[in-house]
Amino acid sequence: MQKRIYYHDTDCGGVVYYANYLKFLEEARTEFMEDRGILMKNLIDRGEFFVVARQEVDYKAPAHYADTLTVDTIVSESSAVKVIFSHEIRNQHGRICVVAKTTLVYVDKNLKPKIMPEHVRKGLISK
Amino acid sequence: MQKRIYYHDTDCGGVVYYANYLKFLEEARTEFMEDRGILMKNLIDRGEFFVVARQEVDYKAPAHYADTLTVDTIVSESSAVKVIFSHEIRNQHGRICVVAKTTLVYVDKNLKPKIMPEHVRKGLISK
Amino acid sequence: MQKRIYYHDTDCGGVVYYANYLKFLEEARTEFMEDRGILMKNLIDRGEFFVVARQEVDYKAPAHYADTLTVDTIVSESSAVKVIFSHEIRNQHGRICVVAKTTLVYVDKNLKPKIMPEHVRKGLISK
Amino acid sequence: MQKRIYYHDTDCGGVVYYANYLKFLEEARTEFMEDRGILMKNLIDRGEFFVVARQEVDYKAPAHYADTLTVDTIVSESSAVKVIFSHEIRNQHGRICVVAKTTLVYVDKNLKPKIMPEHVRKGLISK
Repeated sequence: MQKRIYYHDTDCGGVVYYANYLKFLEEARTEFMEDRGILMKNLIDRGEFFVVARQEVDYKAPAHYADTLTVDTIVSESSAVKVIFSHEIRNQHGRICVVAKTTLVYVDKNLKPKIMPEHVRKGLISK
Repeated sequence: MQKRIYYHDTDCGGVVYYANYLKFLEEARTEFMEDRGILMKNLIDRGEFFVVARQEVDYKAPAHYADTLTVDTIVSESSAVKVIFSHEIRNQHGRICVVAKTTLVYVDKNLKPKIMPEHVRKGLISK
Repeated sequence: MQKRIYYHDTDCGGVVYYANYLKFLEEARTEFMEDRGILMKNLIDRGEFFVVARQEVDYKAPAHYADTLTVDTIVSESSAVKVIFSHEIRNQHGRICVVAKTTLVYVDKNLKPKIMPEHVRKGLISK
Repeated sequence: MQKRIYYHDTDCGGVVYYANYLKFLEEARTEFMEDRGILMKNLIDRGEFFVVARQEVDYKAPAHYADTLTVDTIVSESSAVKVIFSHEIRNQHGRICVVAKTTLVYVDKNLKPKIMPEHVRKGLISK
């Protein structure tokens, strides 16, 4: 996923604000899943969805206004109720800005862990 | 309402990002209403709430990191289904940073305009 | 400009948070200018830039998670130091969600109004 | 630090958006430091500041609109150039929502690690 940086992504330190990378990760995960036939909106309509259980982020280098970042996303681990995404965010010069790991748990309306539908489990580990 | 400015409120221009003042206005409206016994959460639990129909903002002077802003809020107009808030945001030196006017409409779950409960109407024009 | 809606754009009312449309407007203005050879980053490097002086927004219909919005942008007025953008934001069904008008002033480092470079003035009214 | 939750903190899942807790952590760190005589603004004026090098967050339970969160902050580790903050965020019922660990590095203008001024080092480990 490509992500262009705008004013609203940055802070007065002149760089992308540290929390905003988590928005980019959400976008990248969503696109990753859609590419594999997993539509978040359809899951939500069934009263099921993923919640973030854990987030790790290493900030390696700052990204700046007008940069175009590339967010690479892979599934590094998955089970019937859990999936861990590993992300690398690079700027237009190929420099790594952020390395991140996000643990998601599949839950029902009451936030109880739930076994993922088969097309979700298979989709996550396809390609 | 007093509002301290943090990194997350600012952008790489070194000032508060123009959209973020609307968050401060939300906070100020909520406090204004609570001071008058109008609890948004209670209205929401009834399936009713206010939606913003129109927003006007004049940006007079920039606010900066570590500033402490004061948001003054008055009701400048109100009817059975609508209320207009007028806001002035000043910095710690008394300088006006933002003047804003927000029009809210009271609606039901289907976003149809609805007459406000009496305690809401009366609360808005009290004091 | 097309804008996909993610969780981070929405609020617990189930719709796009009213301040977040201003981020979309920033993105749309930036793209509009780049299409006309006006690179914000180059202006900033000269110590000059646009500041938002006034924002008007009419919220016509809510946008939701997973919507794809289209932001249409035109220059409705411009002078040597000022430009007014008019925006319409529609959802994927062609419904107007937001109508907005943004007044920008061209300024120097001290936030004093400044006459725009010729390629900026011409670019804004081209096409 | 107490933190009231507003619409702008939440998402359409009805809970606080996962990235927004990092804003609360920034606010809590700033207040923690100020209580110990460390004013970020003064450091910035010297061309020095802290950057976040690593963030870990465990999301234990969701926070909701109108909740009042308490953010507890301690220094769990510190050296001449680095400090690790440990945070716990609880809601008004005492339930832990978030546990987080933030690693900050003290740097100069070129983002090179730099030994902290003595009042900063001492302040961080005081009380």
